[in-house]
Amino acid sequence: MTKNITNFKKILVPLDGSKYSERALSRACEVQKAFDSKIILLYVVEKSFPINLLDRKEYLEMLQKFGERTLKKANEMVLKKGITPKTLLKKGNIVTEIEKVAKNEKCDLIIVGNKGLGAVTRLLLGSVSNKLAQTSSCSLMIVK
Amino acid sequence: MTKNITNFKKILVPLDGSKYSERALSRACEVQKAFDSKIILLYVVEKSFPINLLDRKEYLEMLQKFGERTLKKANEMVLKKGITPKTLLKKGNIVTEIEKVAKNEKCDLIIVGNKGLGAVTRLLLGSVSNKLAQTSSCSLMIVK
Repeated sequence: MTKNITNFKKILVPLDGSKYSERALSRACEVQKAFDSKIILLYVVEKSFPINLLDRKEYLEMLQKFGERTLKKANEMVLKKGITPKTLLKKGNIVTEIEKVAKNEKCDLIIVGNKGLGAVTRLLLGSVSNKLAQTSSCSLMIVK
Repeated sequence: MTKNITNFKKILVPLDGSKYSERALSRACEVQKAFDSKIILLYVVEKSFPINLLDRKEYLEMLQKFGERTLKKANEMVLKKGITPKTLLKKGNIVTEIEKVAKNEKCDLIIVGNKGLGAVTRLLLGSVSNKLAQTSSCSLMIVK
């Protein structure tokens, strides 16, 4: 039925550890099952976040650890559904890195949550999804 | 495989007659096939478009005809793929009407094009998708 579909072959799921990105990941797994897509899980350590330079190193290390934990948790959740994802941890501007990975990995769909709580990262994936909606050259699904 | 999925059951596809919304409709058909979803095709006659009051009636009639043609064409395209959609023509603010239909029809996914050319309607579906990304309570797929 879906034999001739050349889309939804590679799905990028940027994570921020929030319940919103977890929900996006659940949807991504459903799309994966339906289209037999590949899944890439991405966590971006946001380097451009304004923070006192003295605390910067410690802060980035904390974010990196949080990112690793987030990816590990997501990886386990996805493996349980019989899907083997690729996981990536990048450092930089979150929107730029998402777009770079989408391009380099030739993704044809990005699935993001509506917004992120990110008590640790303090990043709003919501504003990220808005920026991606405007700038990304790849199709985008915003999960509410 | 997709038996337990309760999402993507009703997809709303707002059309503006542009190639972008045609592409969105193609993707919608693929998602429909994969998830056995219902499809609603919607054209909104944008009433809030600023136009000389003297030309208003004629302009709205023209938009209405264009909308009917757009829905007819999309309906035929979708029928050819073995899908029987519901078609709706509404009048009002395009974002408000999309959200109203999504809510009333209990849609769980809106699929829109990235931007619209809309030589006739002069509406940019692009800005509509950005507004929906921010305000819609329903998941949104922006097709590039």
